[in-house]
Amino acid sequence: MKIRQLALVGGVTLALGSQFTSAASLDDVMKARGLTHKDVLAAAKTYVPTGKRDEYLAFSSGGQSGQVIVYGVPSMRILKYIGVFTPEPWQGYGFDEESKAVLAQGNIQGKSITYGDTHHPAFTETKGEYDGRYLFINDKANPRVAVIDLHDFETKQIVANPLYKSAHGGAFVTENSEYVIEAAQYPTPFENEFVPLEEFNDKYRGGVTYWKFDNKKGRIDQENSFTVELPPYSQDLSDAGKGPSHGWSFTNSFCSERYVGGIERGRPPFEAGCSAKDTDFLHMINWQKGEEVVKAGKAKKINGMNVISMETAVAENMLYLIPEPKSPHGVDVTPDGKKIIISGKLDSHTWVYSFDKLMAAIKAGNFKEKDPYGIPILNMKDTLHTQVQLGLGPLHTQMDAKPCIAFTSLYVDSMIAKWDYCEGKVLDKVSIHYNVGHLVSMEGDSVSPDGKYLISLNKLAIDRFNPVGPLHPQNHQLIDIKGDKMELLYDMPVPLGEPHYVVAIKADKLKPVIRYKSGWNSREDKRSPFKTRAGREKTVVTPGKVEVFGTTIRSHITPEIIEVTEGDEVTIHLTNLERAQDETHGFAMYGQNVNLSIEPGKTVTAKFVADKAGVYPYYCTEFCSALHLEMEGYLLVKPKGYQATEVKAQEGATYTEADYNKQVKTNIETQAVIDSVVGFITSHNYQDFPPVVALVEDATDQLGFAKEAKEKSEAAAAKKDWQNGALWANQWWQYQVKAADIGLRAKTYLEQHDAVKVK
Amino acid sequence: MKIRQLALVGGVTLALGSQFTSAASLDDVMKARGLTHKDVLAAAKTYVPTGKRDEYLAFSSGGQSGQVIVYGVPSMRILKYIGVFTPEPWQGYGFDEESKAVLAQGNIQGKSITYGDTHHPAFTETKGEYDGRYLFINDKANPRVAVIDLHDFETKQIVANPLYKSAHGGAFVTENSEYVIEAAQYPTPFENEFVPLEEFNDKYRGGVTYWKFDNKKGRIDQENSFTVELPPYSQDLSDAGKGPSHGWSFTNSFCSERYVGGIERGRPPFEAGCSAKDTDFLHMINWQKGEEVVKAGKAKKINGMNVISMETAVAENMLYLIPEPKSPHGVDVTPDGKKIIISGKLDSHTWVYSFDKLMAAIKAGNFKEKDPYGIPILNMKDTLHTQVQLGLGPLHTQMDAKPCIAFTSLYVDSMIAKWDYCEGKVLDKVSIHYNVGHLVSMEGDSVSPDGKYLISLNKLAIDRFNPVGPLHPQNHQLIDIKGDKMELLYDMPVPLGEPHYVVAIKADKLKPVIRYKSGWNSREDKRSPFKTRAGREKTVVTPGKVEVFGTTIRSHITPEIIEVTEGDEVTIHLTNLERAQDETHGFAMYGQNVNLSIEPGKTVTAKFVADKAGVYPYYCTEFCSALHLEMEGYLLVKPKGYQATEVKAQEGATYTEADYNKQVKTNIETQAVIDSVVGFITSHNYQDFPPVVALVEDATDQLGFAKEAKEKSEAAAAKKDWQNGALWANQWWQYQVKAADIGLRAKTYLEQHDAVKVK
Repeated sequence: MKIRQLALVGGVTLALGSQFTSAASLDDVMKARGLTHKDVLAAAKTYVPTGKRDEYLAFSSGGQSGQVIVYGVPSMRILKYIGVFTPEPWQGYGFDEESKAVLAQGNIQGKSITYGDTHHPAFTETKGEYDGRYLFINDKANPRVAVIDLHDFETKQIVANPLYKSAHGGAFVTENSEYVIEAAQYPTPFENEFVPLEEFNDKYRGGVTYWKFDNKKGRIDQENSFTVELPPYSQDLSDAGKGPSHGWSFTNSFCSERYVGGIERGRPPFEAGCSAKDTDFLHMINWQKGEEVVKAGKAKKINGMNVISMETAVAENMLYLIPEPKSPHGVDVTPDGKKIIISGKLDSHTWVYSFDKLMAAIKAGNFKEKDPYGIPILNMKDTLHTQVQLGLGPLHTQMDAKPCIAFTSLYVDSMIAKWDYCEGKVLDKVSIHYNVGHLVSMEGDSVSPDGKYLISLNKLAIDRFNPVGPLHPQNHQLIDIKGDKMELLYDMPVPLGEPHYVVAIKADKLKPVIRYKSGWNSREDKRSPFKTRAGREKTVVTPGKVEVFGTTIRSHITPEIIEVTEGDEVTIHLTNLERAQDETHGFAMYGQNVNLSIEPGKTVTAKFVADKAGVYPYYCTEFCSALHLEMEGYLLVKPKGYQATEVKAQEGATYTEADYNKQVKTNIETQAVIDSVVGFITSHNYQDFPPVVALVEDATDQLGFAKEAKEKSEAAAAKKDWQNGALWANQWWQYQVKAADIGLRAKTYLEQHDAVKVK
Repeated sequence: MKIRQLALVGGVTLALGSQFTSAASLDDVMKARGLTHKDVLAAAKTYVPTGKRDEYLAFSSGGQSGQVIVYGVPSMRILKYIGVFTPEPWQGYGFDEESKAVLAQGNIQGKSITYGDTHHPAFTETKGEYDGRYLFINDKANPRVAVIDLHDFETKQIVANPLYKSAHGGAFVTENSEYVIEAAQYPTPFENEFVPLEEFNDKYRGGVTYWKFDNKKGRIDQENSFTVELPPYSQDLSDAGKGPSHGWSFTNSFCSERYVGGIERGRPPFEAGCSAKDTDFLHMINWQKGEEVVKAGKAKKINGMNVISMETAVAENMLYLIPEPKSPHGVDVTPDGKKIIISGKLDSHTWVYSFDKLMAAIKAGNFKEKDPYGIPILNMKDTLHTQVQLGLGPLHTQMDAKPCIAFTSLYVDSMIAKWDYCEGKVLDKVSIHYNVGHLVSMEGDSVSPDGKYLISLNKLAIDRFNPVGPLHPQNHQLIDIKGDKMELLYDMPVPLGEPHYVVAIKADKLKPVIRYKSGWNSREDKRSPFKTRAGREKTVVTPGKVEVFGTTIRSHITPEIIEVTEGDEVTIHLTNLERAQDETHGFAMYGQNVNLSIEPGKTVTAKFVADKAGVYPYYCTEFCSALHLEMEGYLLVKPKGYQATEVKAQEGATYTEADYNKQVKTNIETQAVIDSVVGFITSHNYQDFPPVVALVEDATDQLGFAKEAKEKSEAAAAKKDWQNGALWANQWWQYQVKAADIGLRAKTYLEQHDAVKVK
């Protein structure tokens, strides 16, 4: 039994399995698994075969995980968790200096916060259509809004609201992403000071912040953002006007009773006093007017934020209140911008307001009364289009592609109602699993919803899935809404976080990049000053500091040895030199809490103080090639004042001329195989297949490296340095193996995609 | 249009949707979605209808995410991410003091590490069978092993290896979970000191640690664990013997060349020197003998760990080396314990060793030679059963239910080979997506694998799914192995982390708890000294400290107001009083990085210094009831020396006798509805349905609370205190609504599960 090195017998591998069809019939499978015909239909409606794509991508808030979840519809497969408010090591998020800078933007009164309670994601819009450029998401616990770039699915910016201490109701976007809307929730003083609860009515405040979005830069412009001061009514969700209602926004509220609990001192709890009255207030704000008011210098600055006082807002006729069903959760403007739909969880009716009637009432000055803060209250009867009894605990509404058709979740009934908001009639109901909160239809918040699918966001699924302990997954249920009757298709467990809301976009609107430009700081979207090219790696030592400009490429990190002295501040910049899109490298180091993710082209930085003498291995954490375990190195931290003794390293293994010759022979054989693979590829129309073109490009790179190693090997051999001759010959072979691996992939791809021979 | 409060019209809600069958046929769906018959068959084999269970649960390493991923097979739906080495806010992991204590056990040389590079999960075993009690997982970057309790899916313990600075090869479990095996990887000195690389051969060391597992306590017993010192050969994965080979363990290695790179100083990189020779070493260790050696006092203590030196191990005949194919990745003992299978990625053969032949060679003292450290090397030819050419880049092997049948991943070929390791022949091959690493078959590491399904763990899926930016998901492909031919069923994206290995267990072996005993510290598995019962909430103020003993129950936190002084150390213990399993409450507070998850029964603790005067709202982060937004409170931090002024709070809203009477009338009507629901339930055989019994129990609790609120309301009314009368009447109604909600769920459940009337 001869020991053989990798015999690259390109071309003889056969996918035997794919030649056979299954012995089992569909009936057999149904019987064995207890499936009904309806189940099989649902399976067929959701199954996405290998290599095929989902039609929509859903972006879900990750609740208290502080992340955003991306999944495909209809397969309901989760594609990515994006780190937003919480450090996440797989992405290196919060570990490299570049992303730490993004997280630091979200510090609260100077304090680092390592989680977020994400609630409502929203896409950028152009003329009310999702444009697939950016996604916004808010943090309720520490009022912040994050900007996620959909070109690379990374968080680029976090802004902290300088006035609020609670903000459930964000993010909502105006028709051309002029502003991102964030409303306060639990009232607090705007100033970061103690104010006794006894002064709640007078000094605690709510508000709605309009974060200016710079569409060119893709960043929120804090300087040109503004906030409208509001009474302490616990503002909740918002929606921006569309079409005829463009320029206005709508924000609902709960606890407009302004109740302050204190069960521990004998007072009825918040929940009793916050839901005692029959109605709360819908806030209607003319933000276009607000923009003018700020420009006219009528706003005051508080903590650096432009604030329009209630008094000014009333004087400028930009703020009105309208009674709404008690404890509502969600206000939704219809795609035509003409109606506003609100459900109160404790009212079995869903209310539909007419924007025309609202405007007419304002024009007529037809105010029922003013609230204690002087804000005009419109007469509900003047402004309602209709009230519809949908069921118990109506909560949130999403729109269909068909005009006048909407879907509303019924929390108490555990159902979804399909209804006509123009005619005011119920069309269909479907039972879902319980604890339903929000809903999402495809492109449901845009001016032209696609409908097609509806996802019911149910909480804490205690009996839908295999049990996994006392903390349960959530259950996102997919419903087919293409026909007249809704059909439940799929139960998707959410394994991390309690999502509040989801938005879904047509997948082909997204065009994410597959690699970065070389030497890229992805968080700032520009070339990194620390980028390093192959062969230009260096280590700069200054007193007390060591700065490494290194690179990664399969399968080694340059440098492989870093020497520093105890107490040094160590900075390691690493650039991933790869151009192949699946060649992300990681970088983890023992004992220093260093962990980086370096996608092709990226430059990232780790920084730490080497405060203890010792030996600290580092390595690539990604399975980047057959030799990925060998992608390693050592940080050596010498004690202060260390004097090296004269120790000459002994090689662990020695190589002879015979070893050199053996390796060279193998390499020549390997090259013959590579040449035959290259021959196959170039004799076919490979240029018609972009993935193959990319692979060929990559293989050519590897062969270039092989050539360099071959030269080093031959130079050493010429000097009869068989040790280095053999080792460099092995390195030459390493590159050959990588090239061959890529070549075989390319060949297989061509075979499987019916490439044809070219002359 | 009359405004109505929630009209509880129990019994009239109809699941209209479920009455209709779909208009679309399977053929229509196939045509519309471009599905083949094979696709539909795969869909039917993997689809799990709502409420049904998966057959297996897979526990996947989360790679650099530092978490463990749990998913169902065959549906491939992810059910949970378990926080292990990385803080995770949804679970409150690393936020409450109880879990912080677990994470702190994993500090490295006193330093907090906030990630892990998880690699190989392993279940506890009894007689070689998975017993579903605990799961172990290692961290490669900072050598640690964590213990996850499968009764509640929480991490209970982390042990840090005091000798290693790198450890890829863990965790592997002996036949009765006597030990958890963890091998070193990149060699380093055992002591936490600087040793120059020139002394690599003499002072850098590898090793295998046997962590003693206390099966009664469910914790690793560090005192009775031990490590066998090994040469600096970059030890890798291990497997424990079974049946006849019980008492032995096997650990492979790479870079037995002991090569030290240094590409930045002109040396060939690690990858060249670490794969230059044709073979590496399989290490064979008699750990039962090792246990005796330690008991006999022949081990020395290094950093508190029992260490058996190489010299002692050789002298005690417990350590042998055998040549193995170069750069192997995985050593796997067959279910009968008689053979050991190893593949080297750079060798196209997979090698099968015979345990009998190994023992015979040892008995015969038939050693080829000794290594430089004096360890006997067995002659490969004497110990091999066979070598089989499976394909290019063979990597990892899993076992079938049928004897002699195994599956091996082929990294370069991007295929899985099914083969017979007794006869040494290939039976079938199937193409998978590329970058395949490990494989897992159902219960594949146990003495009686179930086979059935095989999962191929492919890395960095660049073209299988909708693109989500430069950092790609992994692709876990499900393969049906029940028939003679393997069939690819499903592509599952892994959205967070790069899993290295997965283990899968029959789902019905797991019996997770659904709630904790009241007042439970889940991390220590005992009652918390800080547990608090309803009505016993208190706040203890001592100089500079405020300690709150609070509770949560839908929908209020007690206390609702916490007053402290700037600079106070604030400790908040919260006990979740709920008994309903879907009533997890969260607790998030502005600006203090406080975020807790409190499952029913749990007691957890938040601790922080209130270093800045101000107003800090807190609230429940879970959508726990219709009034969850109202589950709120305020931390008030007063400036030092603050003197309260005489301000009397004004109520935001006032209530009259009419308000009181109106609410009471509503409550009486609501009670009638509740009575009718109760009547329906109790007139049916609800006691035959455990979920309904639990709901009834919960509803009864709520009605008890309603009664208490009713009494308070009536007491206030008797004193003509209409304000408190109306508010407590509202609270009474809140509890009624909760009871009614639960009652309606129970009623729906009975209707949907064909409950029958009882006399």
